[in-house]
Amino acid sequence: RLDLWTSVSALVNTWRAFMYGGKLLVVPQDGSHWLSMRMVLEKLWEKGHEVVAVVPDAALLLKSSQSFTVKTYPVPYTQEFVDESYQKLGQNSFETLTFSLLFRNITELTNMFTSACRHLLSDKELMKYLQDSKFDAIMMDPVLPCGPILAEYLSLPSVYFMRGLPCTLDYKATQSPSPVSYVPKTLSSLSDHMAFPERVKNFLIGFSEPLLCHLFYLKFERLASEFLQRDVTIQELFSQASVWLMRYDFVFEYPRPIMPNMVYIGGINCLQKQPLSKEFEAVVNASGEHGIVVFSLGSMVSEIPMKKAMEIAEALGTVPQTVFWRYTGKAPPNLPKNVKLVKWLPQNDLLAHPKTRAFITHGGSHGVYEGICNAVPMVLMPLFGDQMDNAKRVESRGAGLTLNILEMTSSDISNALKAVINDKKYKENIQRLSDLHLDRPIHPLDLAVHWVEFVMRHKGAPHLRPAAHDLNWVQYHSLDVIAFLAAVTLLSLFISFKCCLCCCRRFCCKKGRTGKATKAKSH
Amino acid sequence: RLDLWTSVSALVNTWRAFMYGGKLLVVPQDGSHWLSMRMVLEKLWEKGHEVVAVVPDAALLLKSSQSFTVKTYPVPYTQEFVDESYQKLGQNSFETLTFSLLFRNITELTNMFTSACRHLLSDKELMKYLQDSKFDAIMMDPVLPCGPILAEYLSLPSVYFMRGLPCTLDYKATQSPSPVSYVPKTLSSLSDHMAFPERVKNFLIGFSEPLLCHLFYLKFERLASEFLQRDVTIQELFSQASVWLMRYDFVFEYPRPIMPNMVYIGGINCLQKQPLSKEFEAVVNASGEHGIVVFSLGSMVSEIPMKKAMEIAEALGTVPQTVFWRYTGKAPPNLPKNVKLVKWLPQNDLLAHPKTRAFITHGGSHGVYEGICNAVPMVLMPLFGDQMDNAKRVESRGAGLTLNILEMTSSDISNALKAVINDKKYKENIQRLSDLHLDRPIHPLDLAVHWVEFVMRHKGAPHLRPAAHDLNWVQYHSLDVIAFLAAVTLLSLFISFKCCLCCCRRFCCKKGRTGKATKAKSH
Repeated sequence: RLDLWTSVSALVNTWRAFMYGGKLLVVPQDGSHWLSMRMVLEKLWEKGHEVVAVVPDAALLLKSSQSFTVKTYPVPYTQEFVDESYQKLGQNSFETLTFSLLFRNITELTNMFTSACRHLLSDKELMKYLQDSKFDAIMMDPVLPCGPILAEYLSLPSVYFMRGLPCTLDYKATQSPSPVSYVPKTLSSLSDHMAFPERVKNFLIGFSEPLLCHLFYLKFERLASEFLQRDVTIQELFSQASVWLMRYDFVFEYPRPIMPNMVYIGGINCLQKQPLSKEFEAVVNASGEHGIVVFSLGSMVSEIPMKKAMEIAEALGTVPQTVFWRYTGKAPPNLPKNVKLVKWLPQNDLLAHPKTRAFITHGGSHGVYEGICNAVPMVLMPLFGDQMDNAKRVESRGAGLTLNILEMTSSDISNALKAVINDKKYKENIQRLSDLHLDRPIHPLDLAVHWVEFVMRHKGAPHLRPAAHDLNWVQYHSLDVIAFLAAVTLLSLFISFKCCLCCCRRFCCKKGRTGKATKAKSH
Repeated sequence: RLDLWTSVSALVNTWRAFMYGGKLLVVPQDGSHWLSMRMVLEKLWEKGHEVVAVVPDAALLLKSSQSFTVKTYPVPYTQEFVDESYQKLGQNSFETLTFSLLFRNITELTNMFTSACRHLLSDKELMKYLQDSKFDAIMMDPVLPCGPILAEYLSLPSVYFMRGLPCTLDYKATQSPSPVSYVPKTLSSLSDHMAFPERVKNFLIGFSEPLLCHLFYLKFERLASEFLQRDVTIQELFSQASVWLMRYDFVFEYPRPIMPNMVYIGGINCLQKQPLSKEFEAVVNASGEHGIVVFSLGSMVSEIPMKKAMEIAEALGTVPQTVFWRYTGKAPPNLPKNVKLVKWLPQNDLLAHPKTRAFITHGGSHGVYEGICNAVPMVLMPLFGDQMDNAKRVESRGAGLTLNILEMTSSDISNALKAVINDKKYKENIQRLSDLHLDRPIHPLDLAVHWVEFVMRHKGAPHLRPAAHDLNWVQYHSLDVIAFLAAVTLLSLFISFKCCLCCCRRFCCKKGRTGKATKAKSH
């Protein structure tokens, strides 16, 4: 019966696409990245487009959808292995990692994704289906670049949907200049206002980026070259993207040069406030004038070391607010009365409640934007990835305070929490950011949908592709022009100098001879 | 009775602003620039904002408005002088100008505008009114920068509305990088794909820009320093702008790095198609299967030298289409039957008519966008200013052909016109551009209105101001960092070298001595 249902649903989809819309292939990224992308896909599906996502059969959040089509492909690892890998990433954040351990962790994850990608690309049946399906465009989260390889292979115009790429590769691939003097490098935890030593640091990170990037993407580059049967670099693949949907805006990110094919859709994940369930509503109402605090370290942290958990619990007991703590691990024995431990919480709806005074978060981009949308000051405990950068951005705007998860003590947490709740400037700053962020001509979800449809309708956006892509490094920096002009200038200077010298000599000689002649005469 | 009406209308405006909106001061630029800006102002007025424009009492198109308030200030020249100056600009385009004459023309115009600006700034009564009025923001066309001086004086956040500034000053003032290798300089008539000699030309123009800009804006810079009682540069004044509304988009302009506070509103002037008047409708219908051609060189050309006019008339006679020629000068005696000379024509409505086959235009940005909106291939006869650049952009997209107004012969015109009408590729290309241009998430007029309101609501847009403004030239280019790192590298190399040398010497000496000792022993 499931097969019949699948067939009927596929038929309905094909009919809808024929009547109303286009066909979109989707290569998503697992984890929280998927959540906001799914919103765009559902909206596209509602508008009558046929949407087909290809996902590995063992994944964290990538599951079949009630609306659009999901095609799974087999991978050589199990669901348990995936869950474990993500959990390990979360747990490792609470330990001081040696470089070799960190490197092993990253290698393990990229190995998993490369392996998934290799299995997708070598799945003959699926690939044939994709080729025969005649999609209008491909949408992807390119952070681990299986999508760009597939786009190149299927010759499809692509839309990227993302928070950022390692080594500022997003801005390199779009030919957007990034002056190191005020554009902080990814994962540097720097702001746009840097003192001299910070500028030196940013410069050195920028200097080492090509090598780091090469190492990080080496496996994918090999896979791409092997599969496409020609030598390609990852930057070359990325530079083919038609439109880049960036999951942030300049209320959050530091203003910097951008390109016309970059579209900023920060806050796309902020949902309309929904009414709270009775259980939550009751606790919120009982919190009285002090209100509540929302605390979540995201879905990737299920267990916190007990010592750390007890320190956190102790700190939470020092504030008069009721704290909702989303935590699936073992409850610390010193859990104070004002802390409600929950396995899950309606994060956005709680943040949107007028009684919410603060948000303790790991600083994932989705959470930070929910904090901004609802104007809740934050205490940030960044764990990994872009979370340090996100925390820096919120803190440098005076809208929150950052704690070092490894070094923070109970009193650090308590002080930070009290500060963001009681010092009015944090609320004022986040309110200002929120007002700026929400004052936009079009909702980011509609903007994202428009640009995906644009690429589907026009088979790309070649009019937004800068001519810089057709220049080599020497030409781009006008080094050949400078060399030519320098040569011309030097040559003309040399000739002028020689002419002058010649004239002078003649004049002197003449004078000398005349002088001699006069002398001879006078004798 | 007029006074009573003015008072009542002022009262109504104040009440409306109190109830619904903000207060906007406007410093417009005369000429065609005014036409699209007025559309934004009228929409803002409709939305309940109080809009006050300050204009000189002798002007070409800046007239009192039925909706928003216009405050005039006296200037020391007459209406006739203004009309004559603009006419001269139009007429001069048909003559080969010597550099000195061109320079005199430009000087004359900038003198007129500087004088108007000086009179505005020294109008004590008006200035007091402006200071007392507590505006929320100031909107201006900054090409001749009286507005930026006023904005600085009144400490108002500003919105710029414009097509471009001389010497790429717009991109310099916003800190947007403009690589000379693929970003053609203003007024260079170059495209984004340049051969080596063109890149040399673009580089040299870029090199000479600071001097040219200094000379062009010298008078305004002096006026600004005098009025603000401190030394200011024009770039410094421009860099204060909160939001830049650019009257073009990347269907027309070449893609290049931009900044987050630049908003692209190309096509803002394209109106909804209105039904044609009976006279025009009758002629269009009578044109049969061949359709019509629309021909206008803009409002600034009233008279064309008779020889040129006769050549044009002769060329127009060679096509089977009916030609509407907007021309206020003396009709050439050889005017063919298929050419209808009119003093005025509903340009957008005619271009929107399905029978329209081609558009002969001087390439003003408004006209070009009407051509793009309505997908009509163009023959461009650029006269001055940005029109050469505009023509280059249309031609390089294969959507039109450019003629040199000084050198074109009757057969050149005829050939170009026949080509754009009969060669399908021109229609296909302009149709593609039109489709891309019109496929946007929000109408440019609404986008412009949103951003003006944004600046009014938030008293600027400081979150979009890049930190680059706080760096000096050496810091921006990281020259201090590079020098520091070079010094450290050299020093460490030198120390390592010295150490090595020292070690070697010791080693050699020891060996030498040991050698000697061995030798001595062996003897």
